[in-house]
Amino acid sequence: MIAAPRVTFFYAPQTRAGGTLALFEELGVDYDLQLLSLKAGTQRAPEYLAINPMGKVPAIVHDGALVAEQPAVFIYLADLYADKGLAPAIGDPLRGPYLRWLVFYGSCFEPAIVDRAMKREPAPASTCPYGTWEQMLDALTAQLAQGPYLFGERFTAADVLWGTALNWTTKFQLVPELPVIRGYIDRVLARPAMQRAMAKDAAFAAQQSA
Amino acid sequence: MIAAPRVTFFYAPQTRAGGTLALFEELGVDYDLQLLSLKAGTQRAPEYLAINPMGKVPAIVHDGALVAEQPAVFIYLADLYADKGLAPAIGDPLRGPYLRWLVFYGSCFEPAIVDRAMKREPAPASTCPYGTWEQMLDALTAQLAQGPYLFGERFTAADVLWGTALNWTTKFQLVPELPVIRGYIDRVLARPAMQRAMAKDAAFAAQQSA
Ligand SMILES: N[C@@H](CCC(=O)N[C@@H](CS)C(=O)NCC(=O)O)C(=O)O
Ligand SMILES: N[C@@H](CCC(=O)N[C@@H](CS)C(=O)NCC(=O)O)C(=O)O
Repeated sequence: MIAAPRVTFFYAPQTRAGGTLALFEELGVDYDLQLLSLKAGTQRAPEYLAINPMGKVPAIVHDGALVAEQPAVFIYLADLYADKGLAPAIGDPLRGPYLRWLVFYGSCFEPAIVDRAMKREPAPASTCPYGTWEQMLDALTAQLAQGPYLFGERFTAADVLWGTALNWTTKFQLVPELPVIRGYIDRVLARPAMQRAMAKDAAFAAQQSA
Repeated sequence: MIAAPRVTFFYAPQTRAGGTLALFEELGVDYDLQLLSLKAGTQRAPEYLAINPMGKVPAIVHDGALVAEQPAVFIYLADLYADKGLAPAIGDPLRGPYLRWLVFYGSCFEPAIVDRAMKREPAPASTCPYGTWEQMLDALTAQLAQGPYLFGERFTAADVLWGTALNWTTKFQLVPELPVIRGYIDRVLARPAMQRAMAKDAAFAAQQSA
């Protein structure tokens, strides 16, 4: 499938948008970058809120339509550029687990991280849609133990998201640096495309603080 | 695409699994039902935790693989039975918005609802990945205003999820019953398949409390 027109990518350095930057790098496709600055607050400017009412990055616009929310952005882009092999196709036995782990990131990992960052009393396990911290972490580490990647030998877009997310959440000590987690981060980040993405992200950050 | 083998559906009445029950009804496909009881606590039995370590419903197993997390289950099933027309296909201009709104449910709506149910102090808007309650609700109601369904005239699996979710969250007074929300719920629930699903859910609940 030919991706015409190009995708516009709303990005700010040193944010969750770094994962999408890395995904573009792994896909090796061109896109139009729209650089926002959280420092200058341009993500809250009326122009951007008219595009993404949540005022968050990452977001992409393709063919006139907004796609926001990381798991949606990742599913969308990896399917759009299916020839790059980063998404198990519909019908592939890995399609279900792939969707599960991308969605799990946004539905379970992220809210659990917020509770932890805020030092909140967790909601009772049975009424909390993202369960307990321990359930979440156990489910995740059990999956990572199937390595080298989330789905064994097969590297997918889900690894770009999880590798990037575990990198910053361990750095901020929100997630414990267990060997299974550290090893996974190292394997994902060692990939040349991930290295290029991190260098670009750092360069954009330096440019904005200049 | 022929869905062989059949999907196994892990379900309990009067829970979030009701949305998936409704999706199966809208798809009009056969499946193998595994009935769990939250009252009896079978979702926490070792047998079920071996299938879904989060101990949550809904979940499905297809072709040996677990798919959990509602947005993932919905994306998976609607694509598996693509001939039923409930998922904009890859390449359809609605594909991105469809993924965005399914993921938004799990990544933004659900955690915002938990905070509200727990009467928690919200996390600061700029550090909270699901933004503020007002941003979330405004984004949602603006989308619903495009009615009759989320994407105008086109009814999709996302409407099954949102119609069901807004029905119970307004009932529990977690979400305000604004006219745009009430009208949307009524339109979705009026569909014959949704009515059948709610009758089945009630019958299973009655069976379990007998
Ligand atoms: N639910 C969103 C969260 C994205 C998010 O939290 N982005 C942050 C940057 S790390 C942001 O844009 N914050 C700016 C603000 O809210 O002012 C997703 O998964 O994409
Ligand atoms: N993140 C999950 C949440 C599902 C969920 O919270 N299910 C509840 C029923 S409404 C459950 O199974 N609770 C049982 C328990 O945790 O003991 C999803 O979106 O599918």
